[in-house]
Amino acid sequence: MPYKARVYVTLRASVLDPAGTAVQKAIQEQMNVEIQSVRIGKFIEIFLDSPDQTKAHQTIQQICEQFLANPVIEDFCFELDEIPRVSNLASQG
Amino acid sequence: MPYKARVYVTLRASVLDPAGTAVQKAIQEQMNVEIQSVRIGKFIEIFLDSPDQTKAHQTIQQICEQFLANPVIEDFCFELDEIPRVSNLASQG
Repeated sequence: MPYKARVYVTLRASVLDPAGTAVQKAIQEQMNVEIQSVRIGKFIEIFLDSPDQTKAHQTIQQICEQFLANPVIEDFCFELDEIPRVSNLASQG
Repeated sequence: MPYKARVYVTLRASVLDPAGTAVQKAIQEQMNVEIQSVRIGKFIEIFLDSPDQTKAHQTIQQICEQFLANPVIEDFCFELDEIPRVSNLASQG
C-alpha cells in the first residue's frame, strides 16, 4: 500500500530560535504589526510503500528518530495517510 | 484576540530537492525500506494578536508572501486558530 507521511520537526520550547526572532523583528519593523513569537521548524513529506498502516507507522517513527529530528533540541510529530490507488479503469475510460 | 498560525512552505513540484534526495538515499541504504520520495520544507508557527479572524488571515497571508516563501520556487499554505484566553479565575482557584 502507498502511504504519505507529513512530519513536523520543531525546536523544543526551551531552545532559542535566532532565525525565528530575526523574522519576527523584520515583520514588526516593516509591517507594523504585533507578533508574539515566530518559531521555524521543518516540514517533511515522505511517500513510501508498506504492507500495512502499523508497519508504515513504525517505519516513519524510526525515520524521524534516526534521520529527521535531533532529540536533544527538537521534537517531532507526524500524520500518516494511505493514498488510494487510482484504478486503471480511469485512464482506460 | 490571540491567534496561532501554522504555516507550511514547500518546494514546488517542479523544483529539485537535493537535500530530500540525500535523506531518501540514506534511509534506503541504512534501513532497507522502499521510499518513493522525501521533500523537505519549512514549518513556521506564528503567534500574533489581531482584532478579528479576517484581519489575522490577511496579516498571515502578507507575512507568507513577503517574508516566508519565495514564490519563484515555493508554495505555502497555512492554518489559523484563535487561542482561547485562559480566565484569571483558573489561577486564583
